[in-house]
Amino acid sequence: MNFKVRAARKEDCKDISRMIMELAVYEKMPDQVKISHEELERDGFSPNPFYECLIAEVPDEHKTKDGYTIVGYVLYFYTYSTWKGRSVYMEDLYVMPDFRGKGIGKGLMAKVAQVGVEKQCVRLQLSVLDWNKPSLDFYVAKGAEDLTAKEGWHFLRFDGQSLDTLAKEAPKD
Amino acid sequence: MNFKVRAARKEDCKDISRMIMELAVYEKMPDQVKISHEELERDGFSPNPFYECLIAEVPDEHKTKDGYTIVGYVLYFYTYSTWKGRSVYMEDLYVMPDFRGKGIGKGLMAKVAQVGVEKQCVRLQLSVLDWNKPSLDFYVAKGAEDLTAKEGWHFLRFDGQSLDTLAKEAPKD
Repeated sequence: MNFKVRAARKEDCKDISRMIMELAVYEKMPDQVKISHEELERDGFSPNPFYECLIAEVPDEHKTKDGYTIVGYVLYFYTYSTWKGRSVYMEDLYVMPDFRGKGIGKGLMAKVAQVGVEKQCVRLQLSVLDWNKPSLDFYVAKGAEDLTAKEGWHFLRFDGQSLDTLAKEAPKD
Repeated sequence: MNFKVRAARKEDCKDISRMIMELAVYEKMPDQVKISHEELERDGFSPNPFYECLIAEVPDEHKTKDGYTIVGYVLYFYTYSTWKGRSVYMEDLYVMPDFRGKGIGKGLMAKVAQVGVEKQCVRLQLSVLDWNKPSLDFYVAKGAEDLTAKEGWHFLRFDGQSLDTLAKEAPKD
């Protein structure tokens, strides 16, 4: 099947928002999604955006029964290593179920790698849940290293009350 | 001991570069550092910077035997969750050995939390090596959750040849 990968535009945020929710439903956690398409517009399409996004589009004759031609997305941003410099981090990679197995996911990911390399990034990074064996296998087969398994990296988070408490303890200027 | 936390300026990059190397020596991997202070200047102090940095400074009477008054730094950047929105990610937190135990590390981290909250970030995230028990305990004591232990998140990376190969497979525009 023909498909095209292109940079998302502000007007694609409704489609991206729809697919973020589809992905969350698939993961059985739709109530976790607190992002609106207006916030996606604000955070991704203003100066100094917080993320970048590519979408996969199919020709009109392959549109879904609901009329969608945007059938996948990848959302990423730039991170930084004080040893190696610029990196790109892939936050979400999603292809609608009826369009899987056609190279669309691979195409989206490869395009992020290309964008990263063009921006002098030396790494493409991502996180996967350990029970998500198909995804883990997919990435490892493409050449990714599992740094949690290999080097013991653990991922930590402050949020809610613990973040607020910490912020309030900041030294005065 | 008095100390001041302030936003790093371009001319602080030599000090930041020195402390990045000190941290790598402590971790017994100094040959892994490929970043020069010129790259730090370029990547952190141009429009759309790849990172932000705060430094901790002590008064002149407390300067080190080598004459340094900049004795700690924290380097961070912004990431994005498609469920929750803006987050801040703490890449490096370092305080010179002679200045530890005085609240400087805590002050740097709390300031990052404050900067993040002001920018509407809902999370402060970081990664720690599983053998680095003192650091892990420090963060958990301050309220961080270990998401690798709790939810099974693994951290994956493409670099070198596997990144180049992937980038070359990107669909044509």
